[in-house]
Formats: sequence, C-alpha cells, structure tokens
Amino acid sequence: MDFETLKVHRDGPVAAAEIRAPPMNLIGPALVRDMVAFIQQAEADGGLQVIIFKSADPDYFIAHVDIARIAEYRQETVKLTGGEASLGLLFRYLSASRLVTIAQIEGRARGAGNEFALACDMRFAARGKALFGQPEVGFGLLPGAGGIQHLTRLMGRGRALEAILSGEDFDADLAERYGWINCALPAEEIDSFVARLAQRIAGFPANARMLIKERINAITLAPAAEFSYDSGLFPQLAGGAESQSRSRQAMALGFQKRDAEMDLPRMLPELKS
Amino acid sequence: MDFETLKVHRDGPVAAAEIRAPPMNLIGPALVRDMVAFIQQAEADGGLQVIIFKSADPDYFIAHVDIARIAEYRQETVKLTGGEASLGLLFRYLSASRLVTIAQIEGRARGAGNEFALACDMRFAARGKALFGQPEVGFGLLPGAGGIQHLTRLMGRGRALEAILSGEDFDADLAERYGWINCALPAEEIDSFVARLAQRIAGFPANARMLIKERINAITLAPAAEFSYDSGLFPQLAGGAESQSRSRQAMALGFQKRDAEMDLPRMLPELKS
Amino acid sequence: MDFETLKVHRDGPVAAAEIRAPPMNLIGPALVRDMVAFIQQAEADGGLQVIIFKSADPDYFIAHVDIARIAEYRQETVKLTGGEASLGLLFRYLSASRLVTIAQIEGRARGAGNEFALACDMRFAARGKALFGQPEVGFGLLPGAGGIQHLTRLMGRGRALEAILSGEDFDADLAERYGWINCALPAEEIDSFVARLAQRIAGFPANARMLIKERINAITLAPAAEFSYDSGLFPQLAGGAESQSRSRQAMALGFQKRDAEMDLPRMLPELKS
Repeated sequence: MDFETLKVHRDGPVAAAEIRAPPMNLIGPALVRDMVAFIQQAEADGGLQVIIFKSADPDYFIAHVDIARIAEYRQETVKLTGGEASLGLLFRYLSASRLVTIAQIEGRARGAGNEFALACDMRFAARGKALFGQPEVGFGLLPGAGGIQHLTRLMGRGRALEAILSGEDFDADLAERYGWINCALPAEEIDSFVARLAQRIAGFPANARMLIKERINAITLAPAAEFSYDSGLFPQLAGGAESQSRSRQAMALGFQKRDAEMDLPRMLPELKS
Repeated sequence: MDFETLKVHRDGPVAAAEIRAPPMNLIGPALVRDMVAFIQQAEADGGLQVIIFKSADPDYFIAHVDIARIAEYRQETVKLTGGEASLGLLFRYLSASRLVTIAQIEGRARGAGNEFALACDMRFAARGKALFGQPEVGFGLLPGAGGIQHLTRLMGRGRALEAILSGEDFDADLAERYGWINCALPAEEIDSFVARLAQRIAGFPANARMLIKERINAITLAPAAEFSYDSGLFPQLAGGAESQSRSRQAMALGFQKRDAEMDLPRMLPELKS
Repeated sequence: MDFETLKVHRDGPVAAAEIRAPPMNLIGPALVRDMVAFIQQAEADGGLQVIIFKSADPDYFIAHVDIARIAEYRQETVKLTGGEASLGLLFRYLSASRLVTIAQIEGRARGAGNEFALACDMRFAARGKALFGQPEVGFGLLPGAGGIQHLTRLMGRGRALEAILSGEDFDADLAERYGWINCALPAEEIDSFVARLAQRIAGFPANARMLIKERINAITLAPAAEFSYDSGLFPQLAGGAESQSRSRQAMALGFQKRDAEMDLPRMLPELKS
C-alpha cells in the first residue's frame, strides 16, 4: 500500500501516511492521484479504522498547490467527487468518510495544505515547528479548497477574517488559542500522543464511531454546494490578469522554491498590482 | 423543598441544589424523578430566579446513567418532555426554562452527567478536581442526551470529534481551552465565585433575563428534533449485542462501582468486541 | 475628512478614525451622524481600503449609548439602513461593507460601544487597559445593537449567557480566552501591530478581499431581520416602567458621568425594581 508520494506504515487498524513529495510537498497531480488511490484502498479495507497524516519533510507538512498545474491536479479528484474537478470536494469526501483522520502537523501547512489539515477530523501541531496560513489573498485569490468553510466555523468571524485577509503564518500556540487546531503539543511528544490516540479510537466499535461522525458532520460540515462554490471561484480568479501578474512576480522571488518559501508571509507584500 | 437525591439550600432568589445520590451520583430513576419534581417546583416559585447545581460527592458531579435501568429513568422524564421518554429532551427543557442555571463542577462529570452540565446555562469547574468525558463510544454507544448537540456547537468539529471519539477525560484547564466550560477556577474560590454570580444575575429584572435567554437559545440551542433523534439512537444501540457484551465486560471490571470508575477512560480499551 | 467627533488620520489606503466625543465617548446623535458621514465618504473613496477605529480617550473606547437621546441617535442611522432607525442595522451595514475594519480597543467598550467593536471585522485589545461589557440587563434591557447576535456566535451559548446576563466587565485576556476579541496585546505594542496589519491587508487585491468577506459573512453574519428584531426590542423595553426607574436610579448614582462609570459593573446591583 505504498505510493510515489505517500509512504504508508500500517499498525493494525491504524495507517500512518507520510507525505513525501519532494522538494516541498506541493499539491500537484501526483500527490492528488496518490491521495485518491490511498483513500479508496483504505475505505475498502475493513480492518482499517484510523488514518494519521504526517510529513516526511521536517519543514513542510504540505506547502500548497502547484499553481502551474491547477487544471491537472483538479482533474485527479474526479473519482471521489462525483465527477466534479475540485480539491475542496475531495477533501470534503474525506471529512465524510467512515475513516477517522488525524493530521499530525510538524511543519508548514499553507493554502490547500492547511485546507487538507482542516478536512481531517482532528489536528495536532508541534510547538515551535508547525505554522499555518492561507496566503491566497496575496495572489488575488481566496482559499478554494474549504478553508473559508472550516476556519470560519472553527474560529468565528473576527479570527477567520484576520487569518484569511492577512495571509500571515500562525504558530501552533496561537492556532490553538484561535481554535484552528485541537491543540499544540511539545514537538518530542506529538508522535506518541497521536499514535496512542489513533489506536485508542480504532479499538472502539466502528458502528458507534460512524454514527458519531455522521451526527457531528450534520452540524458542522458545510454543504457540498458551499465547497463547490468556493472551489469554482479559485481557477476563475487564478486565470485573471491580477492573479497571473502576482504569480509571475512571486515566481521571480522564489515562490514554489523550498528556501524562499520558508517565510512566505514576508513575500506577499512584495507583490504589486 | 428537599428530595431523596437533591438537597436544596435556598438563599433568597437563588437555590443551590446539591446532588446526593450515593455511592457515586448515577442517573437512575430516583435522581431523574427528583430533578423533574425540583424543576417543576422551582419554575412555579416566582421568587426563585437562579439555580446552582453542585454535588455532595467530592469525586463525582454526576457519574453517568445507570445502564441497568435505562428504560426506568427515561420513563421518569415524561412529565416535562410532552410525553416522550428522553433524558435529552428533559435537559433541553431545562435549557429553555426561564430559570438561569449554573453548573458548579468539582468532580467527574461523564456521559449524561456531562450532558446535564452542558444543558445548564453556564459551567464553572474546579481546577485540579473536575473531569469531563463522554465514554459512550467505548460501549458502542453515542452520547444520547444532548452531548453531541452541545459539544459540537461549543467546540467545533475537530475538538468535538476528539472528545466524543476518544472517550477520554478532559481536565478543567483543557476543558476551558476547548470551550467545553465557561472557565476553570481555583478549587477554593469556585464556591464564592458561583454564589456571587448567581446572586448578581438573580437581582436583575426577570423580563430582560428571559428575553436574553430566548434570543441566545434561538441561535444556539438545537431543535428538539435533534435531541430526540440522538436520544432515540441511545437505547437502540444499548440493546444491541455489541453494546450488551461490552457492558457486561465493563461490569466485571468494576463499572458502576465508585473506585473502579475513578479512572474510567483507562477501562474503555479493555472492552473487546 | 474630519468630523466633530471623529479625527481621521489618513496613511495611504488606511484611515485611522479616532473617536473624540468628550467627556466619555457616549453614542449620541453627533457621533452617529459623524459615523454615517465618515462611512459614506470612506466607501466612496476608491483609494481607501482599511479603517482602524480607536479612541482619543485613554479610559473609554466607547462608553455606551446616551440613554437620554435614544430616539435622536437612532434617527441618525437611517441613511445607511434603508430607512429603519436602528443602530444594529447601521453596525451590520459596516460589517457588510467592502471596507475592512479593525477595532483597536484600549479602554472601556460597553453596551453599544462593545457592539460597535463586534461589528468591526477584527478586534485587538490592550492588556491591562481594555474592558468589555454588556450592562443592559441591569437596566432591564437587552443588547439591541447586535451584541446578542455576535457574542453568541463568537463564544457559544454558555459564555454568551454569562457575559450578557451578568453585565460584568471582561478584561482583554479573558475576552481573548472567550473568543470575544481576536487577541490581547501588550498596551505598548497594539498601535504598531494594528497599523502594520492594516497596511498589510490594504496592499492585497481589493477583489479577493471583498469575495473573502462576502463568503465569511455568508456563514457568520446574522440576517438583517435578527438585528432588526433585537433593535426593536431595545426602545420598547427602555420605555417601560422598570427600565425607566432603573435609569433614574442610575443617573442619581452618576451614570453617564465619567468617574462614576469607571467601575460600572459595581453600580448595577445597586439598582432596584
């Protein structure tokens, strides 16, 4: 059960999927293809109950989408979205799955990388290492893969506006205070904490777990139409002149390069209309 | 105004109801009967404005329901639920009451004990003493008395899933950070803090208080149909083979015994399918 | 772009509007008239993107409404509310504006002063100086300018009931823990933090900003009918005998005087039916 960009470690009813898409875990066609295949196989495996998503890269959980390949990676989602090319609908599919998903974040989770973490059932972050952000606004874009839907419901109007309009990075402690994640943990404890929690949950009866997820989703998971709407705006804006120009400027400054993106929030004000 | 399982201390417009259902404040027919009678008398008493619920037992606020007497305690609710046997609907009745209710939690509040605290208008917890949990999942059950409705709205999707799928205990500080309770207080201050707050609120005009509760409930109190739905699932699951088997195993390990339940979360992974 | 009660400092795409309505920044006809005019001019100015609201008074951000002039200040709102005299609808107009608004709170924000802060897109408060409260209940009133709508959605049922039923002051740290504000900052850092954030946001493309606000508002900004309903209750209650009597008692104790209101929460229990 290994993939080009996902290394899967199985421990009984728990699978830990390590994201390995060097050089910086960008969401491109390969990673989306592998995610879709992994989710399909995992759902079909009756012995599998809980999935942990983590990263093989100490600096990046998932950087964000590859802006040069938007149409391609979107096309890879259609097997799980009922035919609509949409990362947001793929992530929503995961949120509604019978599988329980835990995001273990020890590096940067930005843009759709953060939206993927938000689609997981729980989020735990390593103090001093994890960073969360939605940089889209700097490119004349909006978070199109569910970030608006989730962050707004988790954090309320004021904090969601701050996070999404500023494009700033939020560290693990502030993310906890804002409700962005479940909680921040010492970096040296997160691995054992998450592994233990996953095994614990996996040992409880599947039927009860499914009903509980269903009832909580009924209250908090936005309708597919809302995900679809935000998702449709994303390529529309990305194709516009403003966004195209800002993307070109960003590329010239090192965007989508590992080192230059370490402090991505500082790059955003450099981009001009 | 005293009952077999509730000792009521009246101080002007405030009544403090101390739960005394030894050996561990299980919710059985007697406690539900007394709660119903107390609520009815309190609502009829025009001089009474605010109720504090606390426990005479330093270790248990309310342990949870007596799983051997589900049909019986449910039947005791019907006077206040419009005829439907449902603890969730009884608790919702209290949330919609003209009376302002404050839960002062200094011990374990688990299962329907926690759901009762969630139905109160405010929750204050003693640091180092209070513990909160929904252990139902370990028995193949779901929180049926409003826990899903309240926790999800208070804490958001990720934290509600963690709390309800893990069946873990959350201490007062973590419960505050998650939004589960209003706030955590030093154990030696909680009594005077709550008493003072109750008297303060009780002194304000009743009409304004009622309108404020009504408007806040209109936004946050889930419809009766949602409480009824969760409530209906509970006995259905409890009667199933999986849950019956786990309950028997738990009884053999000391479930529903005071000492064995001090660390109930540790018992849950012992139960097998 | 200066007004009798608002001193406006322009810095490129950001305007900082300092509220100067001595002796204590009460919301009366002059301040509402000036707010309406300022909002209209600001919206018409295509070069203006972000507004910071702060106070020239170190002790009061905005005290609350002038209870002697309710009909008059309400009448000043109609240009922006579609003709309905309602502070809540004026504030909601601001929440829905294309302009991004940041409240920088370094003193007391009570009653409609707090509701104004809640209508802003973000709230930052100076530690050790800012205080937040809804004292209406002490006068037999309810927060009529959106406070119930916003606080309930930001803080959840239990904390909103505590805040609005107690009429207590909440300091910056507790307000942060409750989700009332975005975050509490050291008093000496708030000015530069907010100025920097405002410039950052103002530099991003307007179109993306507007879409993001629109999508977040669609989830969290209550319908105009809810604001209108609360708003209608306010003068109705204020005209009643209970509220009139309590207002007279409060005036005798120094209400609407700068010094006497420094600890307003202590005055409320003195008022009797």
